[in-house]
Amino acid sequence: MPKVAVIIGSDSDLELIQACLDQLKEFGIEYELRILSAHRTPEELSKYVAQLEKRKVKIVIAGAGLAAHLAGAVASQTHLPVIGVPLSGLMGGLDALLSTAQMPGGIPVGTMAVGKPGAKNSAIFAARILALSNASLKGKLKKFQLKMKKNLRGKEKKILKLQKQRNRD
Amino acid sequence: MPKVAVIIGSDSDLELIQACLDQLKEFGIEYELRILSAHRTPEELSKYVAQLEKRKVKIVIAGAGLAAHLAGAVASQTHLPVIGVPLSGLMGGLDALLSTAQMPGGIPVGTMAVGKPGAKNSAIFAARILALSNASLKGKLKKFQLKMKKNLRGKEKKILKLQKQRNRD
Amino acid sequence: MPKVAVIIGSDSDLELIQACLDQLKEFGIEYELRILSAHRTPEELSKYVAQLEKRKVKIVIAGAGLAAHLAGAVASQTHLPVIGVPLSGLMGGLDALLSTAQMPGGIPVGTMAVGKPGAKNSAIFAARILALSNASLKGKLKKFQLKMKKNLRGKEKKILKLQKQRNRD
Amino acid sequence: MPKVAVIIGSDSDLELIQACLDQLKEFGIEYELRILSAHRTPEELSKYVAQLEKRKVKIVIAGAGLAAHLAGAVASQTHLPVIGVPLSGLMGGLDALLSTAQMPGGIPVGTMAVGKPGAKNSAIFAARILALSNASLKGKLKKFQLKMKKNLRGKEKKILKLQKQRNRD
Amino acid sequence: MPKVAVIIGSDSDLELIQACLDQLKEFGIEYELRILSAHRTPEELSKYVAQLEKRKVKIVIAGAGLAAHLAGAVASQTHLPVIGVPLSGLMGGLDALLSTAQMPGGIPVGTMAVGKPGAKNSAIFAARILALSNASLKGKLKKFQLKMKKNLRGKEKKILKLQKQRNRD
Amino acid sequence: MPKVAVIIGSDSDLELIQACLDQLKEFGIEYELRILSAHRTPEELSKYVAQLEKRKVKIVIAGAGLAAHLAGAVASQTHLPVIGVPLSGLMGGLDALLSTAQMPGGIPVGTMAVGKPGAKNSAIFAARILALSNASLKGKLKKFQLKMKKNLRGKEKKILKLQKQRNRD
Amino acid sequence: MPKVAVIIGSDSDLELIQACLDQLKEFGIEYELRILSAHRTPEELSKYVAQLEKRKVKIVIAGAGLAAHLAGAVASQTHLPVIGVPLSGLMGGLDALLSTAQMPGGIPVGTMAVGKPGAKNSAIFAARILALSNASLKGKLKKFQLKMKKNLRGKEKKILKLQKQRNRD
Amino acid sequence: MPKVAVIIGSDSDLELIQACLDQLKEFGIEYELRILSAHRTPEELSKYVAQLEKRKVKIVIAGAGLAAHLAGAVASQTHLPVIGVPLSGLMGGLDALLSTAQMPGGIPVGTMAVGKPGAKNSAIFAARILALSNASLKGKLKKFQLKMKKNLRGKEKKILKLQKQRNRD
Repeated sequence: MPKVAVIIGSDSDLELIQACLDQLKEFGIEYELRILSAHRTPEELSKYVAQLEKRKVKIVIAGAGLAAHLAGAVASQTHLPVIGVPLSGLMGGLDALLSTAQMPGGIPVGTMAVGKPGAKNSAIFAARILALSNASLKGKLKKFQLKMKKNLRGKEKKILKLQKQRNRD
Repeated sequence: MPKVAVIIGSDSDLELIQACLDQLKEFGIEYELRILSAHRTPEELSKYVAQLEKRKVKIVIAGAGLAAHLAGAVASQTHLPVIGVPLSGLMGGLDALLSTAQMPGGIPVGTMAVGKPGAKNSAIFAARILALSNASLKGKLKKFQLKMKKNLRGKEKKILKLQKQRNRD
Repeated sequence: MPKVAVIIGSDSDLELIQACLDQLKEFGIEYELRILSAHRTPEELSKYVAQLEKRKVKIVIAGAGLAAHLAGAVASQTHLPVIGVPLSGLMGGLDALLSTAQMPGGIPVGTMAVGKPGAKNSAIFAARILALSNASLKGKLKKFQLKMKKNLRGKEKKILKLQKQRNRD
Repeated sequence: MPKVAVIIGSDSDLELIQACLDQLKEFGIEYELRILSAHRTPEELSKYVAQLEKRKVKIVIAGAGLAAHLAGAVASQTHLPVIGVPLSGLMGGLDALLSTAQMPGGIPVGTMAVGKPGAKNSAIFAARILALSNASLKGKLKKFQLKMKKNLRGKEKKILKLQKQRNRD
Repeated sequence: MPKVAVIIGSDSDLELIQACLDQLKEFGIEYELRILSAHRTPEELSKYVAQLEKRKVKIVIAGAGLAAHLAGAVASQTHLPVIGVPLSGLMGGLDALLSTAQMPGGIPVGTMAVGKPGAKNSAIFAARILALSNASLKGKLKKFQLKMKKNLRGKEKKILKLQKQRNRD
Repeated sequence: MPKVAVIIGSDSDLELIQACLDQLKEFGIEYELRILSAHRTPEELSKYVAQLEKRKVKIVIAGAGLAAHLAGAVASQTHLPVIGVPLSGLMGGLDALLSTAQMPGGIPVGTMAVGKPGAKNSAIFAARILALSNASLKGKLKKFQLKMKKNLRGKEKKILKLQKQRNRD
Repeated sequence: MPKVAVIIGSDSDLELIQACLDQLKEFGIEYELRILSAHRTPEELSKYVAQLEKRKVKIVIAGAGLAAHLAGAVASQTHLPVIGVPLSGLMGGLDALLSTAQMPGGIPVGTMAVGKPGAKNSAIFAARILALSNASLKGKLKKFQLKMKKNLRGKEKKILKLQKQRNRD
Repeated sequence: MPKVAVIIGSDSDLELIQACLDQLKEFGIEYELRILSAHRTPEELSKYVAQLEKRKVKIVIAGAGLAAHLAGAVASQTHLPVIGVPLSGLMGGLDALLSTAQMPGGIPVGTMAVGKPGAKNSAIFAARILALSNASLKGKLKKFQLKMKKNLRGKEKKILKLQKQRNRD
């Protein structure tokens, strides 16, 4: 049973949202990927969103570009927390960021960064929410953060070594 | 019977959209005003939009601010031409402009300028569309443009007179 | 006899506007392409625009980049509905978008998204206008939307299949 | 016992965050308000954040302006979900929006709209998260949305009445 | 006989362009003010521009806001140097600045700053051009610059005096 | 003897300013190219600018990127007309555009478009100024504009031909 | 003897830079205020900057708006550290921020925030530099930061008290 | 013993900050490179920053992208001067620039240009600070500036030669 529904508005958004899917998998969080557009398939989107709570889905992650209405459209039809990932667009994605974040009072979307970092973070944000009632997932989050730190330390070592060589030459 | 449906997403948008309503009235175009939100009342919006074509409505004008999804939401549920008016928001309305104009391929919104000039122009744009099959309205459009020119000439006269006085003093 | 006049301001805009021409053709809408610049050939543009209504042209689509005045210049010389497509420019086309959309009260331009999606949408918007008095075109619009939905479903299926394989590996 | 920790970076942010506090209260969600700055009181902020999980706090809402680092600083020191509210600043708050939303991969902040709508939405977003394991709160969310719809209907009625009068005059 | 033609697109632009008119007067440069819109009175604008060279006008200053096409429209119909003054608009006038400055290759507009400083500078820029063949005007420009420096010195003195007092208190 | 001084702030700006040099040459306008930086060689720049009027130079074209102070620095040290060309930079050159155009009252810079179109236009703008007292140059400007129109017509023909073939296939 | 030279480009910048002067005074740092413009009084500015090192001035703070060249102009004529404060302008000061910060490689300006916070911070940044060789000033900086924290605590107390009352009512 | 601590938030920032390291080396300024993230390793960052003053480090250079909090985080935990280098990000680095520069009153960051020029300038700015009490370094700064001028002259010569050839051909 999926805990997280990941929706993208177009197949061309897949590459960017992959970082989200990979991160969910790493956390062992069941998810379900759908390609549903607020603009091209609004009824299907509505039907899909309408049954999410009954199917025990907990969180929706919605990624879209340009005038990115997808996350807002989902948020207006469910009481679940909706995480929005702005994907590409005009001025490096400013249009998608503003279209996702600037929601009017009443219908919140938890907006992530534009593109890949935002896609990855949407999975971690979902994990933080689910971990509120899941001690094992909380443990995974802690391990993840430790791994992240360790990775950074490893990279630092390599780089400082290379710099020393560079300075010696 | 209304020819044009004017929808705003919030009662606070009324002041800005008034220029649209006044212009429609000046052209003698029947219209119907509704306050329906893509985010707060999505089902009512869908129901309303679904019956527009049967009710012989020809054009929808949708005005909204912030992450302005209203026009796009309407355009995705009808085959009628949808005119979007971005109303206020962040950076003078840039968020609303981008959210209205940057629609993905397949679902067009004819976007006007931000705020009052855009509201007025949405009515004139609607008139231009209706005038394609309405000679009397075409005549009104011509008169309107002549009046606009005459007004500008009148204002110019007054100003040039004032400038002369100013230069004499 | 053309129903739609498509004007671009420069031959370098052709590649981006092609999506408009292809879409018009798919709908079976007669169109006429012209390269006329508001800045480099203003008189020819004026002459061309002046005879559009007599020639029974219904709609003008104008695509231009940078300080994109083309659509506004056309709109100021006709009573036909004018659709503006902002094409490339500074900051991903923000200059062209603002130059096209921010028209003063009195002279409306129905502005589309920047670049390719906007070009495609200009044709669909024109079709929505023409379909108001053309039942066959209305039918084509409905088929087009169904095809668009079906395409999205097809793409979804492929992607979900690939994801499953990916997850198995 | 507070479920939600609301942190603002400066006393001048209080006015804007009040919409968040009022909404939390309306939902009956216990909260705790603190004024702690990522820049002026980083150690106190760290100490406060470090004990949140032990104190059974579930969610942090952080509101700050300008180079708004507060939400990101909190998110980097806890595994709880952190909701960021960008408050005022340069270009209507674009600096605060970008500083809050553009978090690097690994440390997510669920970013709301700039200013008042974002403040209100941060409380609703928190309620959506808490409602995942709180059926009573889920009920309140449903009632809230119904009330919101009813309010909009009420406002619509008043406005349509006024418009009729206006048109009669 | 006017040396400079000053055109504004709307009577509401008068207040901002006044700084231009005052500066021209201070330099003793004959000018002629017209209110002609690229959008609302394109034919009158064309007629007016067509006879400028015959009437020995040397320079055109054009001020407009929003999608400010006025300067570009003039520049495309004359070989005289055209100075553009962007006046107010979206995001403090960014739309007018981009619409005025981002002219395509072939049709130059010498663009000034947005609003009042730009209006004043348009007159000084015109004076610099006219002074190329007018030694008396060159002298006035030198005096103007000296006066500007002297003014700044005078203001500095006053302020430093006030600061001293302030520091003593 | 050069009529126009072309200054760029860095050798890396040469490629973009070449369109200016080529256009000046096409008009037969003598020019002199210098690489002088407002920031790296301010004294040399001052010395060079100080003797321009004595050497009968009429116009300065200054091209620079990033925080492009070059044109403003020149304009503050001469009474000649100074044309600024913003070259590349942050957000496609917005920093250079604002740094060049937003001059305070008193010191005008005639700002062109960002990059290549602006470089070309700076030469044409210079030609328009010089043509005020040079009938032969005025003639060249008219020929240039005719050639530009003819070129556009030629390109149009080719493209319409290709489109016909495309439509036939 | 002044340790810090504070230069503003116009008397209208005084109000914003006052926060800098007050902060320098609070730290007991001698300073000297001058109104010198990179554009209106470039020679005086050069003369003033040329003798700063001989007069044992250590740091220059330069505040200017619009196309703010002042800090860059100073930095290009001295080897002292130059701190730039962008003051007001287009889009809330974005033009001044970009004109101050986007300096080309070779000539650094340490840029502060736009307006009042930046003005205050310029004084603190100067104090941090001077404190590198001044233990007493280092002590003042520590006290300042403690005071700042204490102030925030005091404000927090008041606000939490008011909130309690509010919640009780 | 290092005089300057250079911190980057991610190993991917190394390429851009290399211009800083090379410049420090050219000036013979000892430095120490660390990869420490305000978000991923906040405690390690705090520990590292806490001991900088005892270790006689004088200046911190911090480079980060996106919601670049690194420089601000360092500045809030030390009394040393902190130089911020915004590295890449949304809209060419506007997010990093605003996140670095728009610091609230009390905690200054001396912000450089985005990317490579800013990285190089951070080293020169550090040198300017250190040169306040180091005559030999002051000498190096003067030589550096002379070399920069000479380089520009050399490049100018080459280019003018090439231009002559080009014009002859």
